[in-house]
Amino acid sequence: MDRYRFYQICGITSDLAMEAHALLRGATRQEVPGVKEEKESHPQAQVSIITIFNEAGARALGKPQGTYITIEAPSLLVADPPAHEAVARLVGEKLSSLLASLQVGPTDPVLVVGLGNWQATPDSLGPKVVGDFTVTRHLCKYAPQSLPPGSRPVSALAPGVLGTTGIETAEIIRGVVDRTQPKAVIAIDALAATDLRRIGTSIQITNTGISPGSGVGKQRAAINRQTMGVPVVAVGIPTVVPAATIIYETLSQGAALFPGIDGSQLVQKILQPFGGNLTVTPKEIDDLIANLAWVVGAALNQSLHTTLLQTRTALPLH
Amino acid sequence: MDRYRFYQICGITSDLAMEAHALLRGATRQEVPGVKEEKESHPQAQVSIITIFNEAGARALGKPQGTYITIEAPSLLVADPPAHEAVARLVGEKLSSLLASLQVGPTDPVLVVGLGNWQATPDSLGPKVVGDFTVTRHLCKYAPQSLPPGSRPVSALAPGVLGTTGIETAEIIRGVVDRTQPKAVIAIDALAATDLRRIGTSIQITNTGISPGSGVGKQRAAINRQTMGVPVVAVGIPTVVPAATIIYETLSQGAALFPGIDGSQLVQKILQPFGGNLTVTPKEIDDLIANLAWVVGAALNQSLHTTLLQTRTALPLH
Amino acid sequence: MDRYRFYQICGITSDLAMEAHALLRGATRQEVPGVKEEKESHPQAQVSIITIFNEAGARALGKPQGTYITIEAPSLLVADPPAHEAVARLVGEKLSSLLASLQVGPTDPVLVVGLGNWQATPDSLGPKVVGDFTVTRHLCKYAPQSLPPGSRPVSALAPGVLGTTGIETAEIIRGVVDRTQPKAVIAIDALAATDLRRIGTSIQITNTGISPGSGVGKQRAAINRQTMGVPVVAVGIPTVVPAATIIYETLSQGAALFPGIDGSQLVQKILQPFGGNLTVTPKEIDDLIANLAWVVGAALNQSLHTTLLQTRTALPLH
Amino acid sequence: MDRYRFYQICGITSDLAMEAHALLRGATRQEVPGVKEEKESHPQAQVSIITIFNEAGARALGKPQGTYITIEAPSLLVADPPAHEAVARLVGEKLSSLLASLQVGPTDPVLVVGLGNWQATPDSLGPKVVGDFTVTRHLCKYAPQSLPPGSRPVSALAPGVLGTTGIETAEIIRGVVDRTQPKAVIAIDALAATDLRRIGTSIQITNTGISPGSGVGKQRAAINRQTMGVPVVAVGIPTVVPAATIIYETLSQGAALFPGIDGSQLVQKILQPFGGNLTVTPKEIDDLIANLAWVVGAALNQSLHTTLLQTRTALPLH
Repeated sequence: MDRYRFYQICGITSDLAMEAHALLRGATRQEVPGVKEEKESHPQAQVSIITIFNEAGARALGKPQGTYITIEAPSLLVADPPAHEAVARLVGEKLSSLLASLQVGPTDPVLVVGLGNWQATPDSLGPKVVGDFTVTRHLCKYAPQSLPPGSRPVSALAPGVLGTTGIETAEIIRGVVDRTQPKAVIAIDALAATDLRRIGTSIQITNTGISPGSGVGKQRAAINRQTMGVPVVAVGIPTVVPAATIIYETLSQGAALFPGIDGSQLVQKILQPFGGNLTVTPKEIDDLIANLAWVVGAALNQSLHTTLLQTRTALPLH
Repeated sequence: MDRYRFYQICGITSDLAMEAHALLRGATRQEVPGVKEEKESHPQAQVSIITIFNEAGARALGKPQGTYITIEAPSLLVADPPAHEAVARLVGEKLSSLLASLQVGPTDPVLVVGLGNWQATPDSLGPKVVGDFTVTRHLCKYAPQSLPPGSRPVSALAPGVLGTTGIETAEIIRGVVDRTQPKAVIAIDALAATDLRRIGTSIQITNTGISPGSGVGKQRAAINRQTMGVPVVAVGIPTVVPAATIIYETLSQGAALFPGIDGSQLVQKILQPFGGNLTVTPKEIDDLIANLAWVVGAALNQSLHTTLLQTRTALPLH
Repeated sequence: MDRYRFYQICGITSDLAMEAHALLRGATRQEVPGVKEEKESHPQAQVSIITIFNEAGARALGKPQGTYITIEAPSLLVADPPAHEAVARLVGEKLSSLLASLQVGPTDPVLVVGLGNWQATPDSLGPKVVGDFTVTRHLCKYAPQSLPPGSRPVSALAPGVLGTTGIETAEIIRGVVDRTQPKAVIAIDALAATDLRRIGTSIQITNTGISPGSGVGKQRAAINRQTMGVPVVAVGIPTVVPAATIIYETLSQGAALFPGIDGSQLVQKILQPFGGNLTVTPKEIDDLIANLAWVVGAALNQSLHTTLLQTRTALPLH
Repeated sequence: MDRYRFYQICGITSDLAMEAHALLRGATRQEVPGVKEEKESHPQAQVSIITIFNEAGARALGKPQGTYITIEAPSLLVADPPAHEAVARLVGEKLSSLLASLQVGPTDPVLVVGLGNWQATPDSLGPKVVGDFTVTRHLCKYAPQSLPPGSRPVSALAPGVLGTTGIETAEIIRGVVDRTQPKAVIAIDALAATDLRRIGTSIQITNTGISPGSGVGKQRAAINRQTMGVPVVAVGIPTVVPAATIIYETLSQGAALFPGIDGSQLVQKILQPFGGNLTVTPKEIDDLIANLAWVVGAALNQSLHTTLLQTRTALPLH
């Protein structure tokens, strides 16, 4: 069974468009209609820019139309601060260009949302980023003299997860968007990839927001322009892969040898005790998350606060 | 200078209606028009019920019209679990009676809001309580069969603080109320008292919500029926007193002796380095908060979940 | 390739003696010399008691001689507080009997050590337990009148992990043992099992301490009577399985079909990006850990503090 | 009553030698025998260097003989990253010079100890710093090739507090020192000052270690060369002042006016509910601690790791 069909049957999807694209091209061995991919080479990273430009492409990849920029930087896994700073700058630039393409101006108010569960380390990237960059909305409103002219009002929210709040995250965010009227939402999230090598090394920035059904069984509504009423840029980094992908890798290595095996039944049988809710993650996940939160926070500061000093970290501006 | 005037000049207010009432009575040595106070005696606690029933009373106490139930239980400061359980039951009963008086029925959806800053221990009571009781809204919606018939949808939110989000807390909550339509909000908050003996020992439950200007310099809008569109019950426990109260206590002990001193100038001079933002708190504040969060969580479970087993703690209901 | 050889080649070991035993018996289809296993049935749990009584048994199971009690309680995965309390009582009893068998008397001082990394949720069980039960050593020493006569001095330590401290955990503990002279150490740890169904449901209590080489690549020295100078009881609960076990499960389901496959090469190839340091864990790991920490804390209180009220949680005794 | 006598009677001591010195000179209006103070002016900070060079000086200041360097940098309270970096460099230099004066060489192993309670924000500076700089002892031992030649083995420990462990912190540290044989200990601690203006702005570096009786009622043994067997450098920053100092300030402002008042009785009466364990702290203590932990971590990296890149933060070196 090929990987594409296996993943479909087992309900495995990648949160990364570039993985979904590679998967489909691998299965069909031809260009995907409605989708184009460009590559860029940077000193610290390889960049893939996938554009899904029609409904056929969206159906084929199982992702909404839009742009998906993926920055691959293996140096994020090692202790190399200058490399991390270079990656943060690149993320900041791509974020800026996506915001500009959505007609979000340099002084338009932006709401940054940190998705995920701060109490489960692999899912804590979003909440960790909230607090790792500078919010200014309150200063713009109550103490504008404390900011340089032309500063952008930036706010932040860590809405929590359904199991703790009982409320779909999209509902919480939409409620806050309605009250505070930002011109754009930037959603930060830990993602699920299907390739272990993406964990902690790939940063996806997209103008399509967050779509339901992605990831490992996260029950949630979309957070996108349609549901929020304003453009939603999502910044996501894989921190886990579904356990079922390991099963496929195993089978695929001997694919020719055992054509009779039904891999999806295996998945169900092997992973039954916790259903699909089993993920594979590296043991050093806490260090990984700390590094990634710094990179994303620095990128947000650079992209959103052109009038402020680009600083090492979000300092209190009381 | 008497205490009442001193507090007024220095901008010291108590979040506890019973303290405001005692303060005013102490100054005027007569009944406060528009306000009545009843007392109850329980094995584990003394209860004061203050009712502000007209505008004159509200002006006099600097608090909105409504009912303020204060449960005083010094046993909360010592390691006495059965006593804590008794206090939790009493808090649960008073909460239930307030909800009933607001026409909030036993199956009406309720949103519990944990106010405050989880990273600053004395202010972390609210966020700690979120997670210390059972939320059911998502189960009522997606898995009603997992709950007994007649279960109430309960949701929870820890909105964060202005310095981290850049958004007034009231705005965040109102946004979520508009989207999720609870019939009532219960707001949990760490309070500022003026008497050190209230720290960790007094629990105030009120049907008036949270009012601006209370506490030590918390810049925020009201969270009440008017701003939320639904009744707001607030449960608060003092965890700090403003540093300025210590100055008054000092002066008051020798009041007759030094009539010429201007206490409010002293306050400004002594506390200048951090403005009014100085609070007095016991060193064991972390243990205190952990205990109080348990008591409030148990009271919420008892009051809101009459169909569920009254359990030791909020267990995951996945 | 059979499971036993596969695990050996891939360096997969289970921290649970009962898994190691079942594995070996599965491979040899006969009794393991030097090892006996007894079973007990309790209303809330099945209990396996494995005794390794000679060197041959120790070599065969790859574990030191001693007693390994494993309590299997699937109810730990669901929200059933009375069941959890029953399991806690059973753990407490088994702990007491192991301590008694080691000649640790009811008033002998005990040091409880919470192993693991509190910043990585699946590894945070040990540090979470420290703080979830009652320490009394300082009270026995400085305020004995605050305790009933015959109270046991109990101390606790969360030594951190090698990556954060730069020091082997065993060195830290031994240093503290030398200074404080407890009569026994109880070490709490998150374990790695090889069967997903053990995650969060099996509690192993052993009088052999913690042995090196167990678990997923944890670089560490033994924590046992030999290295500590006093008896060491270990209480461990699996929270992860190594990712490589998933590969074996996959292969084993079609074992007859593909005899030519070298599974251990597959493991290396598939898991290469993070070496052996990949673990499989359920998404709700934070709720799981919170529950398990409560159960272990309650068992410790029951077993160690026979003179104190058996309370819902470790209350501050300042 | 003068401040000196008042503090003595009330048991108020400052953890800062420069405050103790100023206090005594204020009382006596003459030089303190056995003590000398030098001042340095730096662009970002004023530096006071107090040397207590004989027993008379030690008795007079209530502090052991040695050098106390205090860096006063009000910019630490505002969002000025370049200024913070300059302060960190200055702290690093002073730390280096103190270590050199203690004959601690550039490759001698050092143990950094983060004192305090990570769950109570004002007391969490020490534990926060552990994790905010680079440990290398394990790399030197197990993977020396991953470090430049001449790298220093640095280890770290967050021993917890007496109320949680039941063990005096000094005992834990001494045990670890005995096992791991560092050539010096650096202890990081949150201090109590007596002047509000010192909170978050003064950094004291001393070659005398940590002495008992300092601070607000912290029951603990000394951590110094005598108790540890190796030199102990302490880095401390005030995060609180005892509530009793507010009482003195109040009285002192009208000192001439009310000679008859017994201030120490006032203190006891006013602060009775929590004994001496009441502290005054700014509300933004969480931001303050985060900033200070960064500064101390950066100073430690600079001072201890001359062969490593001076980086923005402690990166994982796994």
